[in-house]
Amino acid sequence: MKGVLVSATLDLREIFAAAFAAEAPEVALLTPEEVADPAEIAFALAWRPPPGELARYPNLQVVCSIAAGVDNILADPELPDVPVVRMVDPGQAETMAGYVIWNVIWYQRRFDLYLEQQAQRIWQRQPQRGAAETTVGVMGLGRMGAVTAQRLAGLGYPVLGWSRTPKEVAGVETLAGPEGLQAVRARSDVLVNLLPLTAQTERLFDAAFFAAMKPESYLIQVGRGPHLVEADLIAAVDGGRLTGASLDVFDEEPLPPAHPFWAHPRILVTPHCASDVSRGLVARQTLAAARAAAVGQPVPNAVDKSAGY
Amino acid sequence: MKGVLVSATLDLREIFAAAFAAEAPEVALLTPEEVADPAEIAFALAWRPPPGELARYPNLQVVCSIAAGVDNILADPELPDVPVVRMVDPGQAETMAGYVIWNVIWYQRRFDLYLEQQAQRIWQRQPQRGAAETTVGVMGLGRMGAVTAQRLAGLGYPVLGWSRTPKEVAGVETLAGPEGLQAVRARSDVLVNLLPLTAQTERLFDAAFFAAMKPESYLIQVGRGPHLVEADLIAAVDGGRLTGASLDVFDEEPLPPAHPFWAHPRILVTPHCASDVSRGLVARQTLAAARAAAVGQPVPNAVDKSAGY
Repeated sequence: MKGVLVSATLDLREIFAAAFAAEAPEVALLTPEEVADPAEIAFALAWRPPPGELARYPNLQVVCSIAAGVDNILADPELPDVPVVRMVDPGQAETMAGYVIWNVIWYQRRFDLYLEQQAQRIWQRQPQRGAAETTVGVMGLGRMGAVTAQRLAGLGYPVLGWSRTPKEVAGVETLAGPEGLQAVRARSDVLVNLLPLTAQTERLFDAAFFAAMKPESYLIQVGRGPHLVEADLIAAVDGGRLTGASLDVFDEEPLPPAHPFWAHPRILVTPHCASDVSRGLVARQTLAAARAAAVGQPVPNAVDKSAGY
Repeated sequence: MKGVLVSATLDLREIFAAAFAAEAPEVALLTPEEVADPAEIAFALAWRPPPGELARYPNLQVVCSIAAGVDNILADPELPDVPVVRMVDPGQAETMAGYVIWNVIWYQRRFDLYLEQQAQRIWQRQPQRGAAETTVGVMGLGRMGAVTAQRLAGLGYPVLGWSRTPKEVAGVETLAGPEGLQAVRARSDVLVNLLPLTAQTERLFDAAFFAAMKPESYLIQVGRGPHLVEADLIAAVDGGRLTGASLDVFDEEPLPPAHPFWAHPRILVTPHCASDVSRGLVARQTLAAARAAAVGQPVPNAVDKSAGY
């Protein structure tokens, strides 16, 4: 079986070759340049594929993302009509929860100020704010959102979970739809974006959204770069509406050196590290999808392309 | 009823007067200078009392600490033979757990490096390390240690709990005594000090202790300043034995401006803010202790003075 690695931004062979070789040495992974006959390609492993590239393979049976999100693949206007698969890593949600918890406490306990104070040799306690006094809104209740919401609730935070359609998450107050969105924005001291990127959620976090958030609240952006209007966030923080934000995803990655986020005193930038799928898991789930597709079986973790996730 | 406020380092009236007035306006709180007749003082609220000061009051019935620790009071060689009371705040243990969790993730996920990278506009992922690959040792299994250990376990960390005498904590592997100490030191990637300060634990964290810790591990010091030999910690970090440390308590507080901890790139300094007892709770528990002692009832939360906690 042969697969093609297509990405406009990452060297997928460098990242995944060893993991696939360990799982299935008989499977060939080729770059587009190495494909002698496009008809021999059965599956693709893709991340931000160049538009039209996947349409070159007439016998392609499945396309797999390297991550939980598939928006980077569905964005291809010439995407062939084959199953698109997302990676599902139980450990990934825990990894995401850890990142979010750290950033919630960073804001709640004002570790940002303590680090500044240390640099200036200042010994000054900030007013203590308890977890019970810090409401966290988690937008998006897929696996990552649900696990993150539950871990926060386990630490004593009042947690509001929001999703487009109603969902239940044990230990979490859940809200849905436009009315629920209003309530989550108005009540949350910290808002965590873990939504899928769809036509409905693209640029959701804009000036109007920030104006409806609780004064002096905080944003943790761990969804996708295009969820956010970056300039509007800077204006909301500079204007004092938001205390600050932690950002792990951006419109352009790597974040360009001249971007104003880097030097902003109330914006924390991390390099899309909140949550990685392990490489071995990408190899195993991609191979499982390719093998299922090859024999006409249901493909595990294929997404609903009309919903976008 | 009249009480005396004795502290060599804090203005206890400024901190607690409003809370006591709200709970019991009929109770008088005096500083030693204001006491006309030492025989009229029934209770003391104390923090680092000047040695010998408490012995001046012949009818003193109880001495209360403002915190969970009483070592600062037991250190008085002329301490009268009356019950010594510690504050017990259920919320305080959760507050401590939040501080410890933040510092564990700070080390585990290398947020220290991400902050440095942001300052230099560097986009570089650090290798992802899972919670399951990060063993946390919690030394001291009083209420704060036990709650902290359990919250860490709930986030997927393997947790080792150590105490002088054997204890059980649900979800946590517990060890005790000198042999258990060896194991906790050797196996923990992060070691959290939540021990009481006693003759046995004073200066426990010294060069020999660090030499027995796992290479490249991390110390979170939230016990008492005198648990640590500060110069030995700097040597252990500079020598590469430890990756770094987060310190909330110190031999001298406020930490003097010239202290080398302030500017050390691998040592995080916070101003004794990991966990506060609420002021209202100090007032309520002190008044309850004073009232119980006045009528000869058992005094709640009195410590075992021979054990030291």
